[in-house]
Amino acid sequence: MIVDTSKKILIVGLGLLGGSYARALKRFGFHISAITKDQSSIDFALKEQIIDEGTTSLDEKMLGEADLVVFALYPHVFVEWITQNQSLLKSGALITDVTGVKGSIVYKIQDMLRPDVEFIAAHPMAGREVSGVENSTDKMFVGANYIVTPTDKNTPEAIETCLELGKLLGFSNVATLSPEDHDEMIGFLSQLTHCIAITLMTCNDKENMEKFTGDSFRDLTRIAKINDLMWSELFVANKKALLGQMDLFMNKFNELKTMLAIEDIEGMRAMMRHSTERRTLFDKK
Amino acid sequence: MIVDTSKKILIVGLGLLGGSYARALKRFGFHISAITKDQSSIDFALKEQIIDEGTTSLDEKMLGEADLVVFALYPHVFVEWITQNQSLLKSGALITDVTGVKGSIVYKIQDMLRPDVEFIAAHPMAGREVSGVENSTDKMFVGANYIVTPTDKNTPEAIETCLELGKLLGFSNVATLSPEDHDEMIGFLSQLTHCIAITLMTCNDKENMEKFTGDSFRDLTRIAKINDLMWSELFVANKKALLGQMDLFMNKFNELKTMLAIEDIEGMRAMMRHSTERRTLFDKK
Repeated sequence: MIVDTSKKILIVGLGLLGGSYARALKRFGFHISAITKDQSSIDFALKEQIIDEGTTSLDEKMLGEADLVVFALYPHVFVEWITQNQSLLKSGALITDVTGVKGSIVYKIQDMLRPDVEFIAAHPMAGREVSGVENSTDKMFVGANYIVTPTDKNTPEAIETCLELGKLLGFSNVATLSPEDHDEMIGFLSQLTHCIAITLMTCNDKENMEKFTGDSFRDLTRIAKINDLMWSELFVANKKALLGQMDLFMNKFNELKTMLAIEDIEGMRAMMRHSTERRTLFDKK
Repeated sequence: MIVDTSKKILIVGLGLLGGSYARALKRFGFHISAITKDQSSIDFALKEQIIDEGTTSLDEKMLGEADLVVFALYPHVFVEWITQNQSLLKSGALITDVTGVKGSIVYKIQDMLRPDVEFIAAHPMAGREVSGVENSTDKMFVGANYIVTPTDKNTPEAIETCLELGKLLGFSNVATLSPEDHDEMIGFLSQLTHCIAITLMTCNDKENMEKFTGDSFRDLTRIAKINDLMWSELFVANKKALLGQMDLFMNKFNELKTMLAIEDIEGMRAMMRHSTERRTLFDKK
């Protein structure tokens, strides 16, 4: 055996991501259990055979037996869960998460956690515009990034296990970043991008614009359909880094506006050439 | 005959758009001629049989015989061409264009034009990230908008002919707008969108970001690869309307930034719900 499938894996929060984790890991034959809030999610996952057992209660046996626990919850729910229920975890258990922000979560959890349980944080950078275990898929991770964000408190073994987990899940790129570098990166690539999309979508409510919309506008606003509960929480949880990225964007946008106002064509062209050249770096390989 | 194919059509500027016009109109059997700057474009179009004749010079016979002349040139080149060469046009000819801005072009051309030639402006809202007649295609117009922007100087017949032209080209939606409404619409849907993409692409040059890029960032910056010569000219030609749209965007972006700074979660959620709801209007039908 190359993979130690005797390890029991528990997923807390069986939604799109939790369900996709279960689906991807079940292929190897791990024992997968799940705790989530809706019985319908458990029923679906059992029927699809992507979990072995599941419950909507804090099942002490299930929690006490899990070697690896994946928390796929909203950030504040995750913190609350650990605060209230960490005593139920198995001694020696490894816990990880899927939270999209790190600095404001990782240290908080590690500081309050029992010394015989280790938390290694990870961010699976994958998602869909739909939610729920019913939409889970093990294809979502192909081509995507999985970032592990270790701190001084993590053991090399835990970091290694978490990196292996990313590969077992099917992620194409598995890497480590500090929580701070992660948050800056996500502030720029993901959160700023969503801020821009929702601003563009709400800054001009003139009627009939949709009749003339082309692909460019649609591309820039695809993510303007947004889960307001989750994203407002993620924005606040990464407030400092995101405000920094918003400032960078606004300063540059103002530069462009000034160049247009004074008809500095050469300045605008230089910015467009910079943009064209830098975008090439970001082409899908 | 439903279509009067005895009409001779001349295309001035045989690039991506001019070539695609030729390709789409040739299907009906019109006599198509072309004047453009590179002999290689003429050679290609003749070989592909999308034009009947073409030249790189100001052929007086070709110009003197054309009933409909389509100018597919950069805005300032179009204005210069009319200033210098309009005496060569056939009396009674109808001329049209493909220019992406209207207010700063339409009145200028109409004011200087010979009284026996009529200019009816149009904007085919279609394009590709590549240029040149070699990349022309008659599929580019399917699903796209064709906007005719008449003024008081236009006759009902010319407006009707221009609308017919849009349909013959294969555009799915053919409509009229005033030059001013057109410019506001294009300032918002297209130009502001490009301003945002190039700003996002150039506001943070930190290394290695591309390693973690997902689809959202790629979607928002696809158009950040931009023809700097053309777009800087189009921005300046629509300066007033575009600056207005940039202000709308910036004010809204600042609102969001303030809400984040003071952690006004309810305010952010309301904006996100507005965004989600309004984006639904813009879904592809």
